[in-house]
Amino acid sequence: SVGPNTFVAVQNIVEAVLNKYQSQGHDHSRLPEFQVFLNDHALNDFNTLFKSLPPNRNYYVAGMPGSFHGRLFPNDFLHIVHTSYALQWLSQVPKEVEDVSSPAWNKGRIYYSSAGDQTVKAYADQFAEDLDCFLHARAQEVVCGGLIILMVPGRTDTSPHTRVFSNISYDILGSCLMDMAKMGIISEEKVDSFNIPIYFSSPQELEATVERNGYFNLERLECLPLEKSQDTIPQKARAVSYHIRAGLEFLLKEHFGHEILDELFDSFNEKLEKSEVFQLGLTYSLLALLKRKET
Amino acid sequence: SVGPNTFVAVQNIVEAVLNKYQSQGHDHSRLPEFQVFLNDHALNDFNTLFKSLPPNRNYYVAGMPGSFHGRLFPNDFLHIVHTSYALQWLSQVPKEVEDVSSPAWNKGRIYYSSAGDQTVKAYADQFAEDLDCFLHARAQEVVCGGLIILMVPGRTDTSPHTRVFSNISYDILGSCLMDMAKMGIISEEKVDSFNIPIYFSSPQELEATVERNGYFNLERLECLPLEKSQDTIPQKARAVSYHIRAGLEFLLKEHFGHEILDELFDSFNEKLEKSEVFQLGLTYSLLALLKRKET
Repeated sequence: SVGPNTFVAVQNIVEAVLNKYQSQGHDHSRLPEFQVFLNDHALNDFNTLFKSLPPNRNYYVAGMPGSFHGRLFPNDFLHIVHTSYALQWLSQVPKEVEDVSSPAWNKGRIYYSSAGDQTVKAYADQFAEDLDCFLHARAQEVVCGGLIILMVPGRTDTSPHTRVFSNISYDILGSCLMDMAKMGIISEEKVDSFNIPIYFSSPQELEATVERNGYFNLERLECLPLEKSQDTIPQKARAVSYHIRAGLEFLLKEHFGHEILDELFDSFNEKLEKSEVFQLGLTYSLLALLKRKET
Repeated sequence: SVGPNTFVAVQNIVEAVLNKYQSQGHDHSRLPEFQVFLNDHALNDFNTLFKSLPPNRNYYVAGMPGSFHGRLFPNDFLHIVHTSYALQWLSQVPKEVEDVSSPAWNKGRIYYSSAGDQTVKAYADQFAEDLDCFLHARAQEVVCGGLIILMVPGRTDTSPHTRVFSNISYDILGSCLMDMAKMGIISEEKVDSFNIPIYFSSPQELEATVERNGYFNLERLECLPLEKSQDTIPQKARAVSYHIRAGLEFLLKEHFGHEILDELFDSFNEKLEKSEVFQLGLTYSLLALLKRKET
């Protein structure tokens, strides 16, 4: 993206590696140098990113445009890969979900979490396929013994999709769009053909995909609960509404036009406040550490 | 910059290296991969650059923001460096040239070419110092035996500064600014304190700096005349005027304000047409091939 969170992550990794070298008694003059690559889609605002680079950084930094589902770097080029809150984005809405003739067709909703099993499976399969593409590309680029630090928002193995905080929120957003369809502001077909390309994985699903891919050992896998905020419900609702608008505005604008956005998020904010999402919604991050196998 | 010339240069280099490998009988599966870094200042429009990357390229490509007068990459990281029409830009206007108490003060002009010896020397020294910084930084980054391909607009060893096509043009631009000062549109002090940070080097000067720097062998140095255009004088004048406006607009706007630009370039265009620049002006490119010495 455009920073500044990314610089915190980079600094943590650089310091951890330097600490390890120093604790092993390496001479100061023999410490490694760091070349960092910041990746995002070619349409990301790299100009803003480059303007905000920390001035006194102890690493070199380049921007690497392109999709991480495919190859970005030469063979055996990377030692540590860090990806945070990115792999939950699917490369596309699963095709069956948009196919009127498929049992996975997602009529009257914009998300999978309260949909039928076929729709949920289509999303889960797409997530697994995308993660496999990511791992396959990185497997060529990461040296043997190299690491991938992977963070995604997720859920525990036992929590149903319908209890995930973000999933409940997306379902509420979908119901707001259906309300607008009923009022004739947008067409119902427009809602049927819109689906959010995000999936919240469980540790078991993540592990199964890493195993099937075969290139990496899963050194560590944790499901970390996020801290609850102490804000009031209206404050929380506003924060969630802003957050989701920031993430989805681009897609919503493209599909429905920008005119509906203010009204949509006003009603979303209102429904959030009245909902049980802040009592029932579960928020977890999955943290996985993967090590490239020796070939 | 933002392409597309840069991609032609990259493609030429990649093909030359692949041809060399193939002519030496290397197996197709053992050909090298290419990781390309495109460098410019952090304020360059990398967004446009990244959107215009050739889709079917046979190299990986990253953007590297920062000044090439300082370090950009880790030690021993680069095999081939290519720089084209960039090193004629000085890192700053030489301090003496802007110092009212210095014999190099450049009163009534915006450029060195028809100024006194002290001013010319200040520019030449700045060019040598900047080139030395560039070479010093690259010397750490380029592997032993690695190459720098360096192109800059320049002049022959015998052609005086006042005969260089661009230099004549800059002097004409300066006279247009002085005209505007005399008409009271801008102040004379504003003209005195504006200087174009560009220098046209000769092969001897370039060679002397490379020798003094000491890290690279000069494998090849050529002074190539540019082809003359077959356009009419008004066409040529317009092309030069556009070209110089594109290059200097940012600096002129910052110093004089954007209001004067249209009038300035109208009068510049007019003076160019009446001038002898198209008969007398000399245009050369210097092409240098440098090889990193073994340490």
